[in-house]
Amino acid sequence: MAKSTKTSKKSGTKNSDKSRGKGGTKPGGKSSNRSGSNSSSTKVLPTPKAAAKPLVPDSFTEALRVGDGFNLFDTDPRSTPGWDGDKQSAKDAMPALGEEMSELQERLYAESKMGGKRSLLLVVQGMDTSGKGGIMRHVVGQLDPQGVSYTAFKAPTAEEKKHPFLWRIRNALPQPGQIGVFDRSQYEDVLVVRVHELVPRATWSRRYTQINAFERSVVDSGTTIVKVMLHISADEQKARLTERLDRPDKNWKFNPGDVDERMLWPAYQEAYQAALEKCSTPEAPWFVVPADRKWYARLAVQNLVLEHLRAMDPQWPAADYDVQTEKARLSAT
Amino acid sequence: MAKSTKTSKKSGTKNSDKSRGKGGTKPGGKSSNRSGSNSSSTKVLPTPKAAAKPLVPDSFTEALRVGDGFNLFDTDPRSTPGWDGDKQSAKDAMPALGEEMSELQERLYAESKMGGKRSLLLVVQGMDTSGKGGIMRHVVGQLDPQGVSYTAFKAPTAEEKKHPFLWRIRNALPQPGQIGVFDRSQYEDVLVVRVHELVPRATWSRRYTQINAFERSVVDSGTTIVKVMLHISADEQKARLTERLDRPDKNWKFNPGDVDERMLWPAYQEAYQAALEKCSTPEAPWFVVPADRKWYARLAVQNLVLEHLRAMDPQWPAADYDVQTEKARLSAT
Repeated sequence: MAKSTKTSKKSGTKNSDKSRGKGGTKPGGKSSNRSGSNSSSTKVLPTPKAAAKPLVPDSFTEALRVGDGFNLFDTDPRSTPGWDGDKQSAKDAMPALGEEMSELQERLYAESKMGGKRSLLLVVQGMDTSGKGGIMRHVVGQLDPQGVSYTAFKAPTAEEKKHPFLWRIRNALPQPGQIGVFDRSQYEDVLVVRVHELVPRATWSRRYTQINAFERSVVDSGTTIVKVMLHISADEQKARLTERLDRPDKNWKFNPGDVDERMLWPAYQEAYQAALEKCSTPEAPWFVVPADRKWYARLAVQNLVLEHLRAMDPQWPAADYDVQTEKARLSAT
Repeated sequence: MAKSTKTSKKSGTKNSDKSRGKGGTKPGGKSSNRSGSNSSSTKVLPTPKAAAKPLVPDSFTEALRVGDGFNLFDTDPRSTPGWDGDKQSAKDAMPALGEEMSELQERLYAESKMGGKRSLLLVVQGMDTSGKGGIMRHVVGQLDPQGVSYTAFKAPTAEEKKHPFLWRIRNALPQPGQIGVFDRSQYEDVLVVRVHELVPRATWSRRYTQINAFERSVVDSGTTIVKVMLHISADEQKARLTERLDRPDKNWKFNPGDVDERMLWPAYQEAYQAALEKCSTPEAPWFVVPADRKWYARLAVQNLVLEHLRAMDPQWPAADYDVQTEKARLSAT
């Protein structure tokens, strides 16, 4: 079946490459590093797709990756990198993408049942109203809940405060075969914590390196990390907060503290820029998703997850029992 | 919009009432007990819908509830209680039901953000291949993952074995506003444990009462419990296990132990019958869902969840801040 995104994506990166700099690895480069962990599968994992002229260009991955020289302030929150179509064509594309994502998820899960160690971790960050909830509902919601481990990180509890900042993050990492989803993450410890000076500068400024080392160890253990920042404009945030105040069925989403945080907008943008430039590493790059258009942000995150799953290329594992023997046993019951 | 299930459901219970006995409460009876916990809402919760001649009869709830005199052996796994339509009409009905379920879920979640204490817990039990995974993917998968707390209970870990059997269950209960989903549950401790005599008879036979007391306390704290047993026939299980052996993409779902367990079929059915008759209480009744037809089982569980959410009737909570003040503050930014 023709998927509209596959053709539309060809013209890909025009809107974005200039402002994003270069660098980072292709997601296709990851699966080859990991074939060792997929120990029970009889299939040899294919060479990276990107090297083999893929049928579908990894266009969102390419278009949105944060490379050297990236500047958040040059990134237009209303742009649609990697996508030439309109809102309706994006909406039309979602179900087929969701189906493919869901099948790849099942293969990843299956792989783990026969000893595979791989997993995927989607990290979602963004200012208030940037659409994190919509990503959870519309993108993560297309996955099979049996294979999803979803964690929303709020202000740390008393128990969590007793431990180093990465302790609660480590405890929430996905198990083999799972897709982990972090709704906020370790980055809050260099965002809200930095903006509000909740710890001394010397402490938070060490954390970028600590996060990079941590993420490298997570990747080394078999987890593909996809870090997404939903990037909205201050004007769009104002419009969305206004809507929450205007609509009684949205009042519960508003908190007076949201206005206080909004007043710190420039400090937050600076903190994001620092996190993006210091922590977009080859093994765990950041992706900045323009998010003033909700439909684009959902399409982009869906494709980012999908492209990384495709690159992991999970396979149905071979049986670790003798099929004929079991057929005979079953038939006797 | 006309929803096909609403009309089709009218003829409801014909297939099932006789074999299921009577008893139990209507889900509509629950919301009135809980209005006190919805403390921040200015709305008074309506009187139970069942009492007020509902537009939609609670037909699956009525058709599937386990009452006095229920006998599992009289329940046809291929029957479709509460549903006159065919497979296609059931499939067609699912999206609209999913949408309604998802909106009610959001209201329940919203309620909790303003102090509401209510939640819903879906417990799913059934023999191997009975379709628990399909329920997770197709029914639970229609919910917003932000408001779902999914737990699959496997054989207890060393840590879990140190504690009373309900310890790990208590730890996994849904938070206010959440929909908790148990994939297997406390009932394994009177099913597999009983069949394999993993603890002395004196121990497991006390557990029915302990489970009832536990569930009562959970209900009293604001959680609506929906307990579902997916009921398949031995023949259907054989067909499904055979398919797992025949199809390479399903081999991973098969385990040689499945055949060993299958040989204990009569003992398991007896254990289920005991759990159903001893633990279908007015506050937390069991629902037995004939599951030889996957499409029916999914439709039935979807409707059971939906009917209980409708009966809870969650409302958008009123703002606990002054909307005009906040509009002025926001507008100044």
